[in-house]
Amino acid sequence: MDKAFQERLHREIPLSDALGVRAVKVSGDGAVLTAPLAPNINYNRTAFGGSVYSVAVLSCWALVTKFLQEQGYNIDYVVVQDGQMSYKAPVDGDFTAESSWPSVEHSEKFLAMLKRKGIARAELQSVIRTRGTECGRLDARFVAEIKKPK
Amino acid sequence: MDKAFQERLHREIPLSDALGVRAVKVSGDGAVLTAPLAPNINYNRTAFGGSVYSVAVLSCWALVTKFLQEQGYNIDYVVVQDGQMSYKAPVDGDFTAESSWPSVEHSEKFLAMLKRKGIARAELQSVIRTRGTECGRLDARFVAEIKKPK
Repeated sequence: MDKAFQERLHREIPLSDALGVRAVKVSGDGAVLTAPLAPNINYNRTAFGGSVYSVAVLSCWALVTKFLQEQGYNIDYVVVQDGQMSYKAPVDGDFTAESSWPSVEHSEKFLAMLKRKGIARAELQSVIRTRGTECGRLDARFVAEIKKPK
Repeated sequence: MDKAFQERLHREIPLSDALGVRAVKVSGDGAVLTAPLAPNINYNRTAFGGSVYSVAVLSCWALVTKFLQEQGYNIDYVVVQDGQMSYKAPVDGDFTAESSWPSVEHSEKFLAMLKRKGIARAELQSVIRTRGTECGRLDARFVAEIKKPK
């Protein structure tokens, strides 16, 4: 568990606390978040699609934020510009969202662009799983802007 | 305000209550929901992208659910299968999500398919606005399944 990042997440995006999000592992290479079914349940006894999307987006936000922190940047903002979510199977239990870069090259280009222009876009994925089974997938485009280098 | 539908929304999808969602107007032609910025705010003082998506999805769910209710159906489920959200401008205040059918023909086909097969897909839109300005748009595909006709 990454308690420090989890506290940051709950502080900066308070809805993450209402969703019950916990930070299992957050690094500049990928982030794994979990959420319990209970606060996200709907009338079908599966997780509400908006909750699933939200946790997936948060896993991508965690990845970019940590990546930039590791590179020594303070960030003015990291926000989602587009999100495309596909639901493949019902989320009928506690679930995880695991985010990743499409490739190492993409993260390197993102960083180079940020250094050059002060703003850059990242295309990230997040996979939703319940008891190890893939239940959905998010493709999201984020934009990051530098406040000032440390 | 549609208090009865709002209570149903909060009961069937409890996260809608945490999001502060209110049902302004819900009919089989379209639904307007509102949400306050406060519970959805993030570190940029704008609404979290996951909250915006969630309220947009709920506005589509409200539309399909009410449409089917008006047609005399009890529904086993109405769930989102795919959602594509574009964020165009920061949501820096209370916001609305207004859902609609792409056309009358689409809603008629949806109903005909549901009668014939017991299952049908609806492609819906929802527009997000803050103080009247469009801030984002969701295109979502829902699937509905009939439990039993009344």
